[in-house]
Amino acid sequence: MKQSVKHKGITRVSLVAVKKEKDLLAIEEPLEIRLGYGLKNDRKQKNLAITMRTPGNDEELVLGFLYSENIIHSKKDMLSVKPCVNKETGELEDNVIRVELSEKAEFDLERLNRNFYTTSSCGVCGKASIELIETVCTLQIPKSYQVSKEVILALSEKIKSDQLVFSVTGGIHATALFDETGKLELIQEDVGRHNAFDKAVGKKLLNENIPLSKSIGLVSGRTSFELLQKAVMAGLPILCAIGAPSSLAVELAEEFNITLIGFLKEKSFNIYTHPERILI
Amino acid sequence: MKQSVKHKGITRVSLVAVKKEKDLLAIEEPLEIRLGYGLKNDRKQKNLAITMRTPGNDEELVLGFLYSENIIHSKKDMLSVKPCVNKETGELEDNVIRVELSEKAEFDLERLNRNFYTTSSCGVCGKASIELIETVCTLQIPKSYQVSKEVILALSEKIKSDQLVFSVTGGIHATALFDETGKLELIQEDVGRHNAFDKAVGKKLLNENIPLSKSIGLVSGRTSFELLQKAVMAGLPILCAIGAPSSLAVELAEEFNITLIGFLKEKSFNIYTHPERILI
Repeated sequence: MKQSVKHKGITRVSLVAVKKEKDLLAIEEPLEIRLGYGLKNDRKQKNLAITMRTPGNDEELVLGFLYSENIIHSKKDMLSVKPCVNKETGELEDNVIRVELSEKAEFDLERLNRNFYTTSSCGVCGKASIELIETVCTLQIPKSYQVSKEVILALSEKIKSDQLVFSVTGGIHATALFDETGKLELIQEDVGRHNAFDKAVGKKLLNENIPLSKSIGLVSGRTSFELLQKAVMAGLPILCAIGAPSSLAVELAEEFNITLIGFLKEKSFNIYTHPERILI
Repeated sequence: MKQSVKHKGITRVSLVAVKKEKDLLAIEEPLEIRLGYGLKNDRKQKNLAITMRTPGNDEELVLGFLYSENIIHSKKDMLSVKPCVNKETGELEDNVIRVELSEKAEFDLERLNRNFYTTSSCGVCGKASIELIETVCTLQIPKSYQVSKEVILALSEKIKSDQLVFSVTGGIHATALFDETGKLELIQEDVGRHNAFDKAVGKKLLNENIPLSKSIGLVSGRTSFELLQKAVMAGLPILCAIGAPSSLAVELAEEFNITLIGFLKEKSFNIYTHPERILI
């Protein structure tokens, strides 16, 4: 069975000490959902969707997804649900689940064709996704950009303002950008964390101030594949988050030379990748 | 300018009191992104994507999205970015933004056609989305299902177990299902909150125990349109969240007869819709 968590060596920085430690990350990997349907002697396949998920209970994930999308209505609508087997190697492809619908299962194929998709942010495995970004993104993130740990520790206080939607609703994500001295450049909010990030990038673009190679980013939630993909495209050298990173966020940050910080508090933070940019 | 927050009358329940109060919700609404491109005398339009967002800085959101997706690279790649105008009424359609690319802007149209989409969970406005669900979902959520406030107050303690990925990584979402006495039926985790919910529904489906008309749901994060859509499809009468709901989550819960609870703590919670199911 695939693991849901993995170990990662990190640098834990506090006001008084710097330690090398081991941390546990929640694993994020793409899962491809395939549908087998049609009459017994004329089975067809539809590649339905790819979702970024934590391995474990993949069959349930797929069935719940199909149920929510009105494709199956009970267990009787399907013959089986299981990981695919690679025809050439005979090995289990545990990031691909295929559901065999029963012959009599009724669903709206036309609606499926309209509504499902492979998003641009996914591949069939994390590796493929990373390679995809490599071919698209030609930006070099500067290695020389460095900031002190005091600048990082001071960031989270600077977004606590009573002007923000978050402070009145408790229900919104924020992305802030700071310069290398820790001065707040802008802050954007949205119910979607990827939208808050896009708004920040868009504002910089309107000011003709892109790529973000001189900025420090701070996001209010957790960091996932999708946010790191956006950070890579924007050329952001340092990305801080109040929450935890996923495994794939860390892999992307490692590969594309981004300093990824998590669990940022007033008195401590964790560095997951490229600690050389933080002066301690 | 469109608002980012709205007021909502709620019922605030604590160990010792029940009060009617006003709360502020972060607004969640769909935004449609359209692209104008091609030569001056042969302009074409592509309906690119629909995203659920909080109104405000919509132009920046769209530009940041296009930048992240490698469609534009600087301000020079576009002629304008603004809300569409309805040709018949002359009114501004402030949930539709159109970007005019400059004639010389280079982008991969083939890749766009492969990678973008309108998700099944979106319409051009919240109202359209709600109508879409109405046509698809024929489940009636039972009005008679009731539980005591003590059952609700006890829920959050029951998912604090050292067995969970959350407790070791801090970076994962959970969905738990309880019966009407507050007994834990199952708990599922994932980096994606929609995936955790799908896993829970899928597990119930495998046990031939669907719809969830006798269950109380608890999610670790916030509630948005997407989660409520899944709750409606699953026939769940009570959905509790540790975090805040979005405006559209509340609208869906109201319309489809779901009791939506937010900010669930050990000593208090807020009821956003259908308080009649909670005995106080």
